[in-house]
Amino acid sequence: MNKLVIVGTCAFDEIESPFGKTGRILGGAATFIGLSASQFDIDSAIVSIVGEDFPQKNIDLLKDKDINMDGLEIVKGGKTFFWKGKYHNDLNTRDTLVTELNTLADFEPKVPQAYKDAEIVMLGNLHPLVQLSVLQQMDAKPKLAILDTMNFWMDSALEDLKKVIAEVDVITINDEEARQLSGEYSLVTAARKIHEMGPRFVVIKKGEHGALLFEGDDIFFAPALPLEEVFDPTGAGDTFAGGFAGYLCQTDDHSFDNMKRAVIHGSNLASFCVEKFGTERMQNLTEKELTERLLRFKKLTQFDIELS
Amino acid sequence: MNKLVIVGTCAFDEIESPFGKTGRILGGAATFIGLSASQFDIDSAIVSIVGEDFPQKNIDLLKDKDINMDGLEIVKGGKTFFWKGKYHNDLNTRDTLVTELNTLADFEPKVPQAYKDAEIVMLGNLHPLVQLSVLQQMDAKPKLAILDTMNFWMDSALEDLKKVIAEVDVITINDEEARQLSGEYSLVTAARKIHEMGPRFVVIKKGEHGALLFEGDDIFFAPALPLEEVFDPTGAGDTFAGGFAGYLCQTDDHSFDNMKRAVIHGSNLASFCVEKFGTERMQNLTEKELTERLLRFKKLTQFDIELS
Repeated sequence: MNKLVIVGTCAFDEIESPFGKTGRILGGAATFIGLSASQFDIDSAIVSIVGEDFPQKNIDLLKDKDINMDGLEIVKGGKTFFWKGKYHNDLNTRDTLVTELNTLADFEPKVPQAYKDAEIVMLGNLHPLVQLSVLQQMDAKPKLAILDTMNFWMDSALEDLKKVIAEVDVITINDEEARQLSGEYSLVTAARKIHEMGPRFVVIKKGEHGALLFEGDDIFFAPALPLEEVFDPTGAGDTFAGGFAGYLCQTDDHSFDNMKRAVIHGSNLASFCVEKFGTERMQNLTEKELTERLLRFKKLTQFDIELS
Repeated sequence: MNKLVIVGTCAFDEIESPFGKTGRILGGAATFIGLSASQFDIDSAIVSIVGEDFPQKNIDLLKDKDINMDGLEIVKGGKTFFWKGKYHNDLNTRDTLVTELNTLADFEPKVPQAYKDAEIVMLGNLHPLVQLSVLQQMDAKPKLAILDTMNFWMDSALEDLKKVIAEVDVITINDEEARQLSGEYSLVTAARKIHEMGPRFVVIKKGEHGALLFEGDDIFFAPALPLEEVFDPTGAGDTFAGGFAGYLCQTDDHSFDNMKRAVIHGSNLASFCVEKFGTERMQNLTEKELTERLLRFKKLTQFDIELS
């Protein structure tokens, strides 16, 4: 089995949406990425940091999905990263109410020895220099390094961000971030400018409006599945990235055609994530459900027009 | 050849966008619908009204595309409908600066005798009772009646709008209008409620985010083609509707699979419309350009995932 290293937060989230509110629940980029990638036949490991307040049952939940947790540092007396947010009525915008970095402030990720030869490294949203340090720990350049980031680092650490962008093969960001990073409004032009910064593949996430994959002049678009009820978008982007990385890790094929499939698998997994609060829907997802929904993606997008 | 009756405005537009401004140029829903539908092998007729100020060369332009203009009423001493708008930097939003109804205020459309047996009637955005009067003039219920409308009529003439909605087979509206009309945020739920109002097919236009086609529980999604430069979105929705109606008129097949193709053809034509101001790009469009871009739509959306 191919190996996937996942770096990112394991966290507590507290969420308010028009549909209700949660207490402190399991969250974090690495958690969502790991749960999503665990749907594939791979050997994955999470590299993260939490405090002593992080319950063993959360760690066991991830271990039960065959995710190696040796790279999870538990800081004695420390507290786990905490995020509290409130979604507006349209669920497309949200206010951050609380961010407590806690142990994350001093996170120095350590990739377990057994995973330093991993085929794929998935860098969840973190400070760019923290992401870079993970790549530097690998035995060799991985076959594929995937970077997720956000506008916060464009505002506060742009030069560091550019350094890690130059080292990765794939970047996943949302449409507004792509525009900010490139200074271009057209996503086609934005993607080309981001290509020039390093990554061979650029994935632009547009939330309920789907995702675009760019490789040079090749473009692929996957819609988000139109859903009757969206409950909580938290983690949808990470779940997308986890499905994308997990599928690529399983198949070990980085052709554009296979990257397309990876985007569809990522979109498919993300469509489940938003149906319940937090990780709830991702914890008990069957292969049958995934396959049925892939069929819906096919019906949603496939057409036949004969071109002479 | 099958017949298509197109009802809507022939107008003057004046447009400001971040890319420049125009003087008074040819515009109007029927104009854009007609130019787009004229790409197909059909017998189409425009039913509209203009003033004496509408230049003969505009009429000749449409006639040269084999559009019958016998249903165009030219009011002596009257002035043509005029709209002036200014697009914001993102081109997704605009302010209407001037609307002069002029001759449109007293428009009583008259379908030419030779087109009262048309297979398809395409009702461009107008007062709902004006749209309804066209359906009532037909010899029999057409095979397909397609309605385009907008939020203005939901605000000012909702009961009349519901009457015409109940009589048509297809409605095309944008996402915000679908939400307003149905009172539902989810487009899936919105489409279901609109189905219950009459139309068998619901097309929800999302501008740069593509279009959704609903028939009962069947959903199809077509993206907008990601473009490097969008110049002027005016008429894109009408161009979409014209391509959709024109293709269905040519093929005379209202199965869901063929409606899907119609949505792709509509999206394809709309992708050209936005590349220049007004109707400029639509006036000289070659079959080769259309076919090449259809191929881009295929590459953009088609993938192969084997499902067991």
